[in-house]
Amino acid sequence: MLSSDDVTRLIERLPFWAHLSEPQKDYLQKNTNTAHFSAGSFLHNSETDCIGILFLKTGMLRIYITSDVGKEVTLYRLEAGDVCVLSASCLLQGIDFDISITAETDCDILQLQSAALARLSAENVYVELFTYKTTAERFSDVMWTMKQILFSSFDQRLADFLLEECTRNHTCEIRMTQEQIARNLGSAREVVSRMLRYFAKEGLVTVSRGEITILDAKKLRDFCK
Amino acid sequence: MLSSDDVTRLIERLPFWAHLSEPQKDYLQKNTNTAHFSAGSFLHNSETDCIGILFLKTGMLRIYITSDVGKEVTLYRLEAGDVCVLSASCLLQGIDFDISITAETDCDILQLQSAALARLSAENVYVELFTYKTTAERFSDVMWTMKQILFSSFDQRLADFLLEECTRNHTCEIRMTQEQIARNLGSAREVVSRMLRYFAKEGLVTVSRGEITILDAKKLRDFCK
Repeated sequence: MLSSDDVTRLIERLPFWAHLSEPQKDYLQKNTNTAHFSAGSFLHNSETDCIGILFLKTGMLRIYITSDVGKEVTLYRLEAGDVCVLSASCLLQGIDFDISITAETDCDILQLQSAALARLSAENVYVELFTYKTTAERFSDVMWTMKQILFSSFDQRLADFLLEECTRNHTCEIRMTQEQIARNLGSAREVVSRMLRYFAKEGLVTVSRGEITILDAKKLRDFCK
Repeated sequence: MLSSDDVTRLIERLPFWAHLSEPQKDYLQKNTNTAHFSAGSFLHNSETDCIGILFLKTGMLRIYITSDVGKEVTLYRLEAGDVCVLSASCLLQGIDFDISITAETDCDILQLQSAALARLSAENVYVELFTYKTTAERFSDVMWTMKQILFSSFDQRLADFLLEECTRNHTCEIRMTQEQIARNLGSAREVVSRMLRYFAKEGLVTVSRGEITILDAKKLRDFCK
């Protein structure tokens, strides 16, 4: 049984909640459980069962693909507040690729079980729409990564800029807005913002309002080579 | 005004047709037009307007991304019978990347205009669901391409196999089922099938039941290097 806090947390993430009947609301809650995964543990790949939709309460998940010979490429990472939908890919028509999911850190998760998601999606088109809309967001994440891999240049340019600022001001706390950085790089604030989030997830910088702190200059330099 | 043939063709591609009201059906038809694009012509990029959903009657579209310095990478190709949905990406929440679309060959298209799609999506959840489900299919296409680019090996292995068969039998008409080829390569029929479709779209082979014909052995060899 979910705690009332978890129920509140869950409802906040479900844009379709208002479209559910009372029995469906009840059914959804009864078929959502909490789960804990330790850092490094394996949640999903093509050989495991479809585990449904995951709502991250705490921690970070890594979603990646693997080649026949075991090469891995990270597609994106999800963190507290994010919804992991490709863990239910068996239910998504049109999605025919395999991904793997591991816990990068200890994770607390709300898991809407696969069978329940299937039933609710069949009964209620808004549930189905939610899974596909979330999938579209993940498509954007993958395209972003793909562009980085294929065209990589902006990550280098931003890293170079931050490192130069750091040297120039003799401090690794860079007091600039993302808008200012974007202007410096002839880019858009959204692009800078996304790249900084990426750097932050990789543990290279921390980002707060009007300030970016480089945590490890060497790592940032090496990362963007 | 669409011809009755075009209306029939359109309805066949719209799984949500039965969910539309009569006025919505009428509105959809009135806001769908035919369009012709000559080989090489440009349909869409981030700087052009959102042109709505395209239903390909004949021809082939190429969907690709470009880098800041003009490098292009093809994401996928669409052909007669396919639905192009990223041409309406401005209406897709969660899709935040830019793509470009050109006509590879002369194309005849049914175009459901952007404003009409927006109105129908807002009025009818099944229309919205259709666009997101189609987007999920394109996500799969992109993942396939990404795996080819990152891990490329299967295209080479399949090309090598076909070329060896061709040499061995002194004919470029290879009489094997896709199932047999898959077994030879320790792969799955679906994987072989998808790669052969890709080769066919690139003009390297033709595929018919139980037979693959290599159109240009040198091109196939070079292509997969």
